[in-house]
Amino acid sequence: MKILNIDEARRSILNRDVQVENTSPGLLASVKDMFGAEATPTSVVAEVLRTIKLEGDEALKHWSEKLDGASWTGTAVPKEALEQAFQNLDKELKQAIELAIRRVRTFHEKQIIPGWRTDEMGGTLGQRFTPIERVGIYVPGGSAPLPSSLIMSAIPAQVAGVDQIIICTPPEPDESILAIAWMLDLTELYALGGAQAIGAMAYGSASLARVDKIVGAGNLFVTLAKQQVFGVVGLDGLAGPTETLIIADDSANPAWVAADLLAQAEHDRLASAILLTPHAEIAEAVQREVQNQLIGLSRRDIIEQALRNRSGIVITPDLEVAMELANRYAPEHLCLSVEQPDQWLGAIRNAGGIFVGERSFEVLGDYVAGPSHVMPTGGSARYASPLNVLDFVKLTSMVSLDDEACAELVPPAAALADIETLTAHAASARMRSSGGASDD
Amino acid sequence: MKILNIDEARRSILNRDVQVENTSPGLLASVKDMFGAEATPTSVVAEVLRTIKLEGDEALKHWSEKLDGASWTGTAVPKEALEQAFQNLDKELKQAIELAIRRVRTFHEKQIIPGWRTDEMGGTLGQRFTPIERVGIYVPGGSAPLPSSLIMSAIPAQVAGVDQIIICTPPEPDESILAIAWMLDLTELYALGGAQAIGAMAYGSASLARVDKIVGAGNLFVTLAKQQVFGVVGLDGLAGPTETLIIADDSANPAWVAADLLAQAEHDRLASAILLTPHAEIAEAVQREVQNQLIGLSRRDIIEQALRNRSGIVITPDLEVAMELANRYAPEHLCLSVEQPDQWLGAIRNAGGIFVGERSFEVLGDYVAGPSHVMPTGGSARYASPLNVLDFVKLTSMVSLDDEACAELVPPAAALADIETLTAHAASARMRSSGGASDD
Repeated sequence: MKILNIDEARRSILNRDVQVENTSPGLLASVKDMFGAEATPTSVVAEVLRTIKLEGDEALKHWSEKLDGASWTGTAVPKEALEQAFQNLDKELKQAIELAIRRVRTFHEKQIIPGWRTDEMGGTLGQRFTPIERVGIYVPGGSAPLPSSLIMSAIPAQVAGVDQIIICTPPEPDESILAIAWMLDLTELYALGGAQAIGAMAYGSASLARVDKIVGAGNLFVTLAKQQVFGVVGLDGLAGPTETLIIADDSANPAWVAADLLAQAEHDRLASAILLTPHAEIAEAVQREVQNQLIGLSRRDIIEQALRNRSGIVITPDLEVAMELANRYAPEHLCLSVEQPDQWLGAIRNAGGIFVGERSFEVLGDYVAGPSHVMPTGGSARYASPLNVLDFVKLTSMVSLDDEACAELVPPAAALADIETLTAHAASARMRSSGGASDD
Repeated sequence: MKILNIDEARRSILNRDVQVENTSPGLLASVKDMFGAEATPTSVVAEVLRTIKLEGDEALKHWSEKLDGASWTGTAVPKEALEQAFQNLDKELKQAIELAIRRVRTFHEKQIIPGWRTDEMGGTLGQRFTPIERVGIYVPGGSAPLPSSLIMSAIPAQVAGVDQIIICTPPEPDESILAIAWMLDLTELYALGGAQAIGAMAYGSASLARVDKIVGAGNLFVTLAKQQVFGVVGLDGLAGPTETLIIADDSANPAWVAADLLAQAEHDRLASAILLTPHAEIAEAVQREVQNQLIGLSRRDIIEQALRNRSGIVITPDLEVAMELANRYAPEHLCLSVEQPDQWLGAIRNAGGIFVGERSFEVLGDYVAGPSHVMPTGGSARYASPLNVLDFVKLTSMVSLDDEACAELVPPAAALADIETLTAHAASARMRSSGGASDD
């Protein structure tokens, strides 16, 4: 793992504009094989979505067969299969899942849903929050199933009061995903993956009713499909490769810092694992630890690529500069491995989650700490939030004016309509004050 | 204005899947003229964005000249011009704007920003909200400037505590937009329109620093550009044509209902103005009033097209069914012109804004009532909210576990990492409990 100075880091790993090619030659070749020379992942996804919108289940059958070698029957996985998967869980794992569910639920139940009303503006005005009716959760499957992401997506929705939560996950779903669905009392689970799952949830078919909002990350095709249905259905944002930025001083344990960087790097060859520290000796100790601990990890190949691509150790002049760099970078995960980490919280503006102190390491956040692990990537923490209860409710503005307020507001509303040359607006307003056309 | 029965309405004006062509032949012809036979609005916008990303100000200069016949100097409109526009306001209009600003600010200052923390989960956990740093507001200009939308977009951002708010509006901006910017103390205003404004705000240039989030509606090119920068920058959603659904019983004043439908229809030839009523006599009276009031309105041509395209009067069996249809349709604006409108609020689930009773008519909401008039269109009220203070803050999850919680959480976290075959995750967790590699 490379050690960089601050200028090198600003030009490379901390520069959000530097793009690393995110489609492997193998993937492009297989797209070409299957769809012909002109096909790109974007055009393939557009075609999948277009046909699903037009043909519904017929198209789902076609793509599920062609892309996943699976047959789409239009029915959810039988409840019995979910229950059986639950019964098959070993005891320790079952307890771990129960703990995760309990803590994530407790955390989100504390979230405040901020409806309000006032009688101080002439009548009653306010904002009311109502749950979204039907939500679709995409859970990645295939070679890298992430059953934990089902917990982290479904519970905020359940706490919000969403009526119907459905799950799509690629064919032959991992047993643990089925078991967790059962434990969360979610029984509408479809073995449908990729862009076709996003299309089915966005447009609906005769057998799968469309949803109001889709959440959950997936592979390139899932992300492209989400991008293309923007405006058709609600979305939780586009997930890019995961990122951790650790800020450490000389109180940090280099072995632990290294382990956390390696955990981050094993997700994806484009994952970012970044350490900022003012202490050269910590930088070097972490570098050595990374090298040592790497031996024996099962995903060593992915880790080594991730460490080369978008990861590194950066020596900063001091902790203040490290905090500034973190704010510019706006990491998904920010870990403060410093003495008195609480003192630095006020300096942090942009981060999906802040892991305060070495005891609050990110792996706990991935599974059991409480907040959803679905957090904003790619610098979007500048403007976006971790998945939370507010993602599953929507606000309605309420306007109930009394007669006096109405009378007071008619002239200024009409004056503003006049400058926009909206004469029907002005007429609608002035009609109220003249009372002429009213029979009240 | 046509009167439909419920089945006809379900198949036509209440069916969100029925698309009306939203690009006029004239627009397509002018795109072709300017860019050649292969060009579509989507491809033109993609090219504008691509060049802005690569070339910054050079591209802004090129497109501003080519598309708007304007020269991009890279500088904001001088403050003196804003102040002069303010000085030129007539007194009545100035007071109307001041009232609008005051009420919209009062309303949004009442919004609750729901941060919290708890000590009940083993340490301190919580959610913290921080304002977005830099926001760009697009204000439509050209033939249909909407100065009110600057008030409705900027104030929630100001209440949220956004540090920097910039405005882009097409060249030769309306004087009232300049005056309102001055009154809101917003002095970074660029005369830059269309897709090039969206590109500049999303990617930045040497003279215009990129923003973290873009809000505000615009023409087709603006909307396409927002769609294409999804993922690069925060967005408030894609605005489609505006919609009002009025539910009226026989207590309603037909003249007022008609005036409100006409006000809605004058925005856009694709605007929807829909009345649901169980009373045939009200339906017919409103229909007559629409016909009478239409005479003499300056936008009669647009109104007549809007009434034909996506508008109509629907006879429902009763008010309950009207409420159900409204929930399915999820209108931007829902107006309850019924006796005892408060009694029906519980039946409404999906709407951007509810205008309760005839005194709370929508035109007041457009300008002065209090809530932002930027509301979700196209059925997106199923999952999206009116623009509000939460759109200008983002949440950070905070995890600060104590030693005991950390120790308790390590085994289940490691067990969950095991089923995801993430061995570096499991190692990072187990290292904490063994304490072996720690020097604490």
